[in-house]
Amino acid sequence: MGRTLIHGAVVVPVLDDSYHKEGYLIIEGTRIAEVGAGTYAGSTDGFDTVIDAKGKLAMPGLINTHGHASMTLLRGYADDLPLQQWLEERCWPIEAKMTDEDIYWGAQLAILEMLKGGTTTFTDMFYFMDRVAQAVEESGIRAVLSRGMVGFDPENGQKLKEQAVQFVQDWHGKADGRVNVMFGPHAEYTCPKHYLVQAAQVATEYKRPIQIHLSETVKEVQDCIERYGKTPVALFEEVGLFNNPTIVAHAVHVTDEDIAILKKYDVRIAHNPDSNLKLGSGVAPALKFLEAGLTVGLGTDGAASNNNLDMFEELRMAAMLHKGVNIDPVAINAFTAVQMATNNGAKALFLEDTLGTLQAGALADIILLDIEQPHFYPKRHNMIAHLAYSSNSHDVTDVFVNGKQLVKDRQVLTMDEKRVYAEIESICERLYAE
Amino acid sequence: MGRTLIHGAVVVPVLDDSYHKEGYLIIEGTRIAEVGAGTYAGSTDGFDTVIDAKGKLAMPGLINTHGHASMTLLRGYADDLPLQQWLEERCWPIEAKMTDEDIYWGAQLAILEMLKGGTTTFTDMFYFMDRVAQAVEESGIRAVLSRGMVGFDPENGQKLKEQAVQFVQDWHGKADGRVNVMFGPHAEYTCPKHYLVQAAQVATEYKRPIQIHLSETVKEVQDCIERYGKTPVALFEEVGLFNNPTIVAHAVHVTDEDIAILKKYDVRIAHNPDSNLKLGSGVAPALKFLEAGLTVGLGTDGAASNNNLDMFEELRMAAMLHKGVNIDPVAINAFTAVQMATNNGAKALFLEDTLGTLQAGALADIILLDIEQPHFYPKRHNMIAHLAYSSNSHDVTDVFVNGKQLVKDRQVLTMDEKRVYAEIESICERLYAE
Repeated sequence: MGRTLIHGAVVVPVLDDSYHKEGYLIIEGTRIAEVGAGTYAGSTDGFDTVIDAKGKLAMPGLINTHGHASMTLLRGYADDLPLQQWLEERCWPIEAKMTDEDIYWGAQLAILEMLKGGTTTFTDMFYFMDRVAQAVEESGIRAVLSRGMVGFDPENGQKLKEQAVQFVQDWHGKADGRVNVMFGPHAEYTCPKHYLVQAAQVATEYKRPIQIHLSETVKEVQDCIERYGKTPVALFEEVGLFNNPTIVAHAVHVTDEDIAILKKYDVRIAHNPDSNLKLGSGVAPALKFLEAGLTVGLGTDGAASNNNLDMFEELRMAAMLHKGVNIDPVAINAFTAVQMATNNGAKALFLEDTLGTLQAGALADIILLDIEQPHFYPKRHNMIAHLAYSSNSHDVTDVFVNGKQLVKDRQVLTMDEKRVYAEIESICERLYAE
Repeated sequence: MGRTLIHGAVVVPVLDDSYHKEGYLIIEGTRIAEVGAGTYAGSTDGFDTVIDAKGKLAMPGLINTHGHASMTLLRGYADDLPLQQWLEERCWPIEAKMTDEDIYWGAQLAILEMLKGGTTTFTDMFYFMDRVAQAVEESGIRAVLSRGMVGFDPENGQKLKEQAVQFVQDWHGKADGRVNVMFGPHAEYTCPKHYLVQAAQVATEYKRPIQIHLSETVKEVQDCIERYGKTPVALFEEVGLFNNPTIVAHAVHVTDEDIAILKKYDVRIAHNPDSNLKLGSGVAPALKFLEAGLTVGLGTDGAASNNNLDMFEELRMAAMLHKGVNIDPVAINAFTAVQMATNNGAKALFLEDTLGTLQAGALADIILLDIEQPHFYPKRHNMIAHLAYSSNSHDVTDVFVNGKQLVKDRQVLTMDEKRVYAEIESICERLYAE
């Protein structure tokens, strides 16, 4: 079992809004053994690795609670378009051409970007998920994965459900516990009512949580009300979806009654502020979620709708956007936003309570940021505020997941960056051939 | 006269929404002599410097149209507070203690951050402006500077007006033309009517434009209506301010009538989306400005209200925020946002028409970005979209201003980075002593 000492860093445990101006961390195996304040005074004997992290800041790795990793293949291909045109004329035709190999390399590109940007856990709902899981296993990142389930066509719906079950059986808990699997019925508008019932049942049977898109656009809610006489939230309650642990993505257009239902079942929220802005979906009522006591994590969504997978931007957006649109300078303070990107993200995904914090016993998912940069000065001021309002994914220099160093001095140790780029360009030549 | 060749880069001239997948630039002295598409086929003889920019993207330097550079000294000191408390209990007491030396080092920290982040022109309204101008001269950046004028007290108001005139005489056009000076009456709420009249007159007399804060908060507009029976925009028209070329910062709470007045006088707008969000001021109606044909640039505002000076974040925010709050996925497209951060920023500041573009004859303010990074892939897709939605200030590797290289491989050549940090920490020890 490897032992690593990281010392001399500013340490931000994300347990409360305090931090250590100087502190140290000891990693043993996959977990944090000790977090201490001040200069490390012990012996450095018995450590396999000793990292002098002076000029760095240590914090929990960021947790991305919603996305579609392999949509990196569509980044920059479909922007500034109306939503239906974006989806039907751009995204779907290209997605229809994607092979499992494309999905694998698209996921690699996403993981490369996320690891470099300090994301240590990501969430994915897509297809050919075995290949995404393979990319997770090989790269060393942590992930929560779902085989997307769409039920327009009964036969296909049945097939996808079987694939989803198979995927749970094949992958949940694998890769040293870094792969978590959920069920992923896609959304109300892609899953008829009877199919949602089946999804709820299979999740209960296999004891895995559900992730689903919810009330992302005005049109989605209006169509659902037209179809069923109730909102997607009320429908999901009716079909028993919320009897399972559930995380919903977006929740932009929800009523106060919807929020009360979400609260009743302790449904978790993946808030995707950038994606919701860019697609013109709107601004989710995150303040109301927090006031209701709901657990809110942050997500990037896919790279076709963001267009990067930068959790520091989501963190910053969450801290700034709701102040502005609510004309309320004290809405969502810096520490709350940092929590949303770390520990509350973990809670939103039903992962271990200690994930997303730095404390003894927690999984050792840790990032180091270079704070010898202008935007971290003056250093004497609030480092949590610097993290929320001033920092940037490119500040990340080192990343550990499950106790293993995956990024060192901005280089991803477990992946072949140039190979990924070459594969992506070659795949896109085929996908986008006239 | 030095000659520099930059070749092999993706070149984004920002003249229209096209770009060269490969191109080259020739700099002669302070200006761009040639911009070409394709591989450079000429001789490299006669160049003092030849830069192989394969894997890089060349674009005009970003233009920050509003800020208070030395407020870097307050970064992270006053966050998540109500506006009046932020200003009166935090900002003002510290600002009252700042010496000219503090202002100088605060400006250095700001310039360091801006240069590293690809900003080649910044705008400043503050005090001890000689020292800010000194920092501009020494660092090589381009700036538009104003001695802030506040007219509560008649005697002090007169003194500030004299300082502002002296500052125009001493500094306008200096530092090889990199220092531009405007008059800077601070805002309606800090300048009584008669003082605004004086400011308008002195600007006319010295033939320099005006920059002023405008309608940033609901309270500011309400108070003005209470005082004068009209909005700040209508008041500024009445006192003759708009008879001078004028750039207004913020314009968050403006009526359609206000916008018509702004259009009548071709008033330029400094849109500060991040600052307006963070301080809970609101979201400026940027779509209406553009529809009215107004010239809109982007600004970071000071680091106490942002908290960084990252123009790529403003660019991205401008491209995303208005889509979301207007539920309109085609609002402010990628190219429009890039224009706002470059050429339209130059226009907003009444600088040369060609500044903020890459074309023969334009001032050679150029930045290079490292595009061998995950978030720029697939490269075959729209690079303008990548710039607006996916890129980041830390992508910038090289910066030229007025034809001179100021940043090389992320190192600022003209400044002593470690010295700046040491001075900032030492100054803050004094400023923030209990």
